[in-house]
Amino acid sequence: MIEQRIRNAAYRDKMMSPSQAASLIQDGMTVGLSGFTRSGDAKVVPLALVERVKASGEALKINLFTGASIGDEVDGVLAEAGIINKRLPFQNEKKMRAKINEGELLYIDQHLSHTAEQLRNGFLPPIDVAILEIVAITEEGGIVPSTSVGNSSIFASMAKQIILELNLAQPLGLEGIHDIYEPEKQGRRQPIPLVGVDQRIGTPYIQIDFEKVAAVVLTEKSDQTSAIAAPDHETERMAEHLIEFFEHEIKRGRLPRSLAPLQSGIGSVANAVLHGFLKSECTDLEVYSEVLQDAVFDLMDAGRVKFASACSITLSPERAREVIANIDRYRDRILLRPQEISNHPEIIRRLGLICINTAIECDIYGNVNSTHIMGSKMMNGIGGSGDFARNALMGIFVTKSTAKGGSISSIVPFVSHVDHTEHDVDLIVTEQGLADLRGLAPRERARVVIENCAHPMYKDALLDYYREALKRGGHTPHLLEEALAWHVRYAQQGTMQN
Amino acid sequence: MIEQRIRNAAYRDKMMSPSQAASLIQDGMTVGLSGFTRSGDAKVVPLALVERVKASGEALKINLFTGASIGDEVDGVLAEAGIINKRLPFQNEKKMRAKINEGELLYIDQHLSHTAEQLRNGFLPPIDVAILEIVAITEEGGIVPSTSVGNSSIFASMAKQIILELNLAQPLGLEGIHDIYEPEKQGRRQPIPLVGVDQRIGTPYIQIDFEKVAAVVLTEKSDQTSAIAAPDHETERMAEHLIEFFEHEIKRGRLPRSLAPLQSGIGSVANAVLHGFLKSECTDLEVYSEVLQDAVFDLMDAGRVKFASACSITLSPERAREVIANIDRYRDRILLRPQEISNHPEIIRRLGLICINTAIECDIYGNVNSTHIMGSKMMNGIGGSGDFARNALMGIFVTKSTAKGGSISSIVPFVSHVDHTEHDVDLIVTEQGLADLRGLAPRERARVVIENCAHPMYKDALLDYYREALKRGGHTPHLLEEALAWHVRYAQQGTMQN
Ligand SMILES: CC(C)(COP(=O)(O)OP(=O)(O)OC[C@H]1O[C@@H](n2cnc3c(N)ncnc32)[C@H](O)[C@@H]1OP(=O)(O)O)[C@@H](O)C(=O)NCCC(=O)NCCS
Ligand SMILES: CC(C)(COP(=O)(O)OP(=O)(O)OC[C@H]1O[C@@H](n2cnc3c(N)ncnc32)[C@H](O)[C@@H]1OP(=O)(O)O)[C@@H](O)C(=O)NCCC(=O)NCCS
Repeated sequence: MIEQRIRNAAYRDKMMSPSQAASLIQDGMTVGLSGFTRSGDAKVVPLALVERVKASGEALKINLFTGASIGDEVDGVLAEAGIINKRLPFQNEKKMRAKINEGELLYIDQHLSHTAEQLRNGFLPPIDVAILEIVAITEEGGIVPSTSVGNSSIFASMAKQIILELNLAQPLGLEGIHDIYEPEKQGRRQPIPLVGVDQRIGTPYIQIDFEKVAAVVLTEKSDQTSAIAAPDHETERMAEHLIEFFEHEIKRGRLPRSLAPLQSGIGSVANAVLHGFLKSECTDLEVYSEVLQDAVFDLMDAGRVKFASACSITLSPERAREVIANIDRYRDRILLRPQEISNHPEIIRRLGLICINTAIECDIYGNVNSTHIMGSKMMNGIGGSGDFARNALMGIFVTKSTAKGGSISSIVPFVSHVDHTEHDVDLIVTEQGLADLRGLAPRERARVVIENCAHPMYKDALLDYYREALKRGGHTPHLLEEALAWHVRYAQQGTMQN
Repeated sequence: MIEQRIRNAAYRDKMMSPSQAASLIQDGMTVGLSGFTRSGDAKVVPLALVERVKASGEALKINLFTGASIGDEVDGVLAEAGIINKRLPFQNEKKMRAKINEGELLYIDQHLSHTAEQLRNGFLPPIDVAILEIVAITEEGGIVPSTSVGNSSIFASMAKQIILELNLAQPLGLEGIHDIYEPEKQGRRQPIPLVGVDQRIGTPYIQIDFEKVAAVVLTEKSDQTSAIAAPDHETERMAEHLIEFFEHEIKRGRLPRSLAPLQSGIGSVANAVLHGFLKSECTDLEVYSEVLQDAVFDLMDAGRVKFASACSITLSPERAREVIANIDRYRDRILLRPQEISNHPEIIRRLGLICINTAIECDIYGNVNSTHIMGSKMMNGIGGSGDFARNALMGIFVTKSTAKGGSISSIVPFVSHVDHTEHDVDLIVTEQGLADLRGLAPRERARVVIENCAHPMYKDALLDYYREALKRGGHTPHLLEEALAWHVRYAQQGTMQN
């Protein structure tokens, strides 16, 4: 059994218990964990570390780098234990979020394609220990990741020491779905040869330095994925608006029936919108994304999506059981790549993706806030949304027109934080309608956004703001003394309504 | 004489006067002009058009697309004549700016690398007529641009009709310094093969369709370049801070003595800062930029810069006379490319550029406003600053710490408009000092920006704001009701000082 999983015998001598492996981690270290959106997370060694710290009462703080968010059991437990100094590049966990917003944990919210470059350039602390979940070690000593690649390959190549978490609960059938390619340092780099969604450009395993491997730990612990909210009436309306728009683009000859490779962001809204393609007439769709959520597999099963490339598979618990156990059914139709490749501006721009990401709020001119609730409180992070929106064929943002039972308008005069500037936002879609902003100047954008996307409850107030601002003039007319008044009102009165 | 300039005889039959050529332009058309930062502008035909409209009194409005800003005589005259409906992707002219801010002219402020893609994808109105300044037509019928390439090649390939302005005052010696490469449509594209600043990947002329050429107009009109403000005490200090920083990076082994290819933005400040390299110990520098201003040629003359690639040469009047007349001295050390290539994310990221651009204002967390005065009034546009900063090895923004004689702080609690988010801003430099923001979380960024970059006059007020915001908590602490109060105070009292 273990011979199948550790096919290079020399690695078998490195087997250790999680707590033995965790003893390698010292105060002040920077630790790189596998894991991307609660998938393929390194788990047992970080948890053993927390146990150790709790038992010893030692003062220990580490910097924690990952691919993206990892499960509550890891991020939550580590945050709660108070042992994290810096965290990057993405998180999505309640307790960690609280610590970040209290200023007890320094969080660097980063474009997901940037982390690998910054490590290579020495602009971030070097990785002392990489802890990577894998399903196998090959004859040649390559390691096979599990359900995500994330930053595992760059962590492996930059780390001083590597700990492998060989997860026997993840099927060996995952072997072969990975495609690992690591660009050279900037300035010495050749073009990345990828020109098609289904193209292999690398190896099915991560090449590592045997000497750096400090431990191999066996585990059967599974990822703690989260259930994903089912489509509701509003997300269905958004999907309908989008499908109608695509049909229109096809008729105008601007898109073929297979559209362009699709990227869709994390979260319930994006997943639900993607689901909407089940009702479309599109076939032969391709997906080139960061993460494959339930909707992508539903679309594959329905024969709509023919190929999907990403750096992670993140499914609801039931869907995970079906898909991962039957991975052979999908193996010729999916590829998992490092997040540097799934999110690379070079590739996104070349392939010309249609990118659908979720906004927290948008302003009337099309600037988007993806991260900060009321300008200050971090929600999750920008993730890959900037990599995708900036370089897309079409940068699309979806959001419900209101939040918190209507007390918040997601269309505001002035966003309380900007993650995506109007230059990168081509379409905004709410359940109310769709604003096609391509080729429009700010004054035109404002009219379309208010008219098509705002909730009727807030439309007049937005128009009042805009008309009043127009009197002052400017390319992007604003009333600075009132620009953020909607958010202030919500903080003071619990509603943006006047 | 003319045989040297129009070496393909068939084109000689297409010669016309400017006013004959201008008669091809009709109401409602979209016109693409050569020209990038007042260099290589199409001039005589647009001016003849204005003459015609003035004489006839006809109602005519066109959409005007260019490479970037064009000279006052063209943008200013066209704006004044009131014949522009939409203008993109960049301008830098007083009268046009006024019309934009009055809402009389619809301006689309765009990443300079995006225009070509949007035209190719049919997301912008198609180009009816392209008017391109050239210095020659080759035997095979290729056209040789003058001192800029800008969007000329994409305009030529997309336009229904082409008018050529053959400028006899521009030396034929410019032939050979261009390198024209046009990517295919997104989705069908191969990697762009450029891997070095000095590498040729295309042809020294733009290939065009003879059938589309409607007119060849002879001219001797020169570009109206503007004098560039000389370095002053403050810009010298900024340059010193930067050079010191680079020395430090070299010592730490993070940069070689030749640094990395440099990009430097338009404007007096960026030019002055680049000038500072004259006093550095750097040699073998390379420049990969949009525009080559005076400083680059000074650095070449001083033996510091060995090669410079851009899409335009924009010099002060005196320097233009020297350089253009002696272009042979530089011909092996410069290349002019389409702006799509000079600004391409794929290339910028691959080559790993050090990008220096000018901010109007920065906030304490490192968000940058490059375009809007007091949040509403357009100055110039984002230009290429987003293409560069997002994909750079290091995204650097420079600005004087105050403006308008100290009544404005360029470091503010909350920028009144965001062009570059904190994710893309690695360093901020003012005459006061330098904030190295790499690897810092927002709360760390705020302290460094206030401490190192703010003017002493505003430091306490910024600290007060920040400390008060901290009490409310959050990842990026703000007091939304006061965030824009500095700008409001300036509008009401003529100063940001309290
Ligand atoms: C924006 C984002 C938070 C939306 O998540 P989602 O699960 O699809 O959307 P929801 O509507 O459930 O909103 C999430 C929360 O934000 C709240 N919210 C939404 N809009 C809001 C607004 N305008 N103001 C305040 N709160 C808002 C919701 O009420 C909800 O709060 P809750 O958790 O207390 O119930 C999520 O997509 C994200 O983190 N995006 C940034 C990263 C990204 O785009 N990555 C894409 C590439 S992977
Ligand atoms: C930002 C930019 C306007 C600065 O231009 P510059 O010539 O270097 O800088 P200056 O200090 O002379 O500032 C220009 C004007 O802005 C004003 N200004 C500067 N900072 C200001 C602030 N914080 N608030 C209000 N006005 C400000 C100056 O007073 C000056 O006004 P004036 O024309 O009335 O004298 C210019 O670099 C630009 O347009 N950048 C955006 C495009 C870009 O970065 N392209 C780079 C790739 S090409």
